[in-house]
Amino acid sequence: MGEDSGFMMTRILILGGTGETGSWFARYFRDKGLDVAVWGPSGKTDVAAKMGVRYAHDMMKEAKESDIVMLSVPIAKTADVIGQVAPFMKPGSLLMDVTSLKFEPMRAMAIHAPQGVEVIGTHPMFGPTMPAMKGQTIILTPAAGRSKTWLPRLKSLFESDGARIEVLDPEEHDEMMAVIQVLPHFAYIGIGATLQALDFDVEKSRKFMSPVYEIMIDFVGRILDQNPELYASIQKNPRARKVRQTFIAECMRLSEKADSGNQEGFKEIMREAARHYGGTHQALERSDKIINKKIKDNDIC
Amino acid sequence: MGEDSGFMMTRILILGGTGETGSWFARYFRDKGLDVAVWGPSGKTDVAAKMGVRYAHDMMKEAKESDIVMLSVPIAKTADVIGQVAPFMKPGSLLMDVTSLKFEPMRAMAIHAPQGVEVIGTHPMFGPTMPAMKGQTIILTPAAGRSKTWLPRLKSLFESDGARIEVLDPEEHDEMMAVIQVLPHFAYIGIGATLQALDFDVEKSRKFMSPVYEIMIDFVGRILDQNPELYASIQKNPRARKVRQTFIAECMRLSEKADSGNQEGFKEIMREAARHYGGTHQALERSDKIINKKIKDNDIC
Repeated sequence: MGEDSGFMMTRILILGGTGETGSWFARYFRDKGLDVAVWGPSGKTDVAAKMGVRYAHDMMKEAKESDIVMLSVPIAKTADVIGQVAPFMKPGSLLMDVTSLKFEPMRAMAIHAPQGVEVIGTHPMFGPTMPAMKGQTIILTPAAGRSKTWLPRLKSLFESDGARIEVLDPEEHDEMMAVIQVLPHFAYIGIGATLQALDFDVEKSRKFMSPVYEIMIDFVGRILDQNPELYASIQKNPRARKVRQTFIAECMRLSEKADSGNQEGFKEIMREAARHYGGTHQALERSDKIINKKIKDNDIC
Repeated sequence: MGEDSGFMMTRILILGGTGETGSWFARYFRDKGLDVAVWGPSGKTDVAAKMGVRYAHDMMKEAKESDIVMLSVPIAKTADVIGQVAPFMKPGSLLMDVTSLKFEPMRAMAIHAPQGVEVIGTHPMFGPTMPAMKGQTIILTPAAGRSKTWLPRLKSLFESDGARIEVLDPEEHDEMMAVIQVLPHFAYIGIGATLQALDFDVEKSRKFMSPVYEIMIDFVGRILDQNPELYASIQKNPRARKVRQTFIAECMRLSEKADSGNQEGFKEIMREAARHYGGTHQALERSDKIINKKIKDNDIC
């Protein structure tokens, strides 16, 4: 705690800092020696007290005096909060967000923050159940010409904790996430809904599972265990609709082959997908490692 | 090699023993000290030679003299091969298969094998890339009243190598597998086909992935790397059609909510699925372990 990160005495206000993601970053910045204040719409001062950080009772005053304002509110409220707070930030300060979409929030931040306030979009590719930043990816989407001071500082701070930083523009980011996040979440939630529709006994089935299926079913459970608000908002990515509909269309194409006993057609879809995918064998080897680890763990339990 | 497994001098013929799964078991039984012969439709005597087991040039003669005949041929050919070989097996011998479906093959084996020949369906819940049986599940579906001698022998052999044995009846087996195997394979292959349809650059995307997505995408690649014949045949489970169609219907229901901006509806599907699933939090904890292991591995590379 309080190690010298070059951020000593920096004052940060985290809006939504009493929520799961916000409080993760509140603890993170607290441990880096920053002067952390949090604010949330439901006034959870106890959460602030527990973390040993200040609660910003006068949120607007705190925003005006802060070096960094970080937004960690649900994406539906992000634009509103930006409009309310950004115009009053002081010159030289940094406005950043941690939402899963970047194009819309970046536009709102760039419009509402005065010139002289820097703007950096942030998308931590990990959830608040992760113990640390080490080995995780953080995508930064800096506003053109408005990140000179803070981009290198943030980057080296996060990198010093073992995070991998990738810089993208906001549009590229949303396009990438429409596949990377939207598609797996959608498929896993779809599987969860199917298990329910079939009234399938998940607990009983564990007896017959191989490690491969056990791992998948655990990831389905993982997503179902988390905040539905977050997952619903990720599906609001403007490019998500096309991805979902392509997935459903491909599943229907695959199902048609299987239903009609067209084995050759089914196999051809697999082969084409494998050719497009590229390094399937490396993927197999990496997944073997995970499976072998799982087998060892099961052995211990 | 040649340890005393109680199977010393037992003669086993593996039909399809030059294929991937068949040769896995050929090596397994060879190492247990059995007298192993293999046969395959394409006459790959070199595969037998490499494994140091006999190739059954006269397949019918070998079948008549064997203590165990194991079928490891594509499911489409299983019934034919059973009809050809089973009637000639000797009293007291064992007919077993290793196909992924059990109801149809068991019916064919029970009809064609003479009374006095025991019949046990076998479904190893692991693929031939697994180095050993340890920690893996093997489902056995013994024919009623026709497994007295061999069921306990097989069970204790496999258990002595750390496999978990589960006994099911063939119908229950197929019903369970229609979810456990059909659904994840179908979803993963559907994701692979979607990546292709979207012309999505998988390699490039790895830079932006979190461990969660990396793991999923590796499992997609894992399946695409393997024999499409096997995956196509697993989808032929008579109960698979209903499972596929339920999955597509649930995805459409979910997509409708997301497309129309019905956040509440989307969240409600998630909540209901979570309630049905049961121990989602334990699933999250188990998946956290896998993710943390993945982070450590990435760190080493």
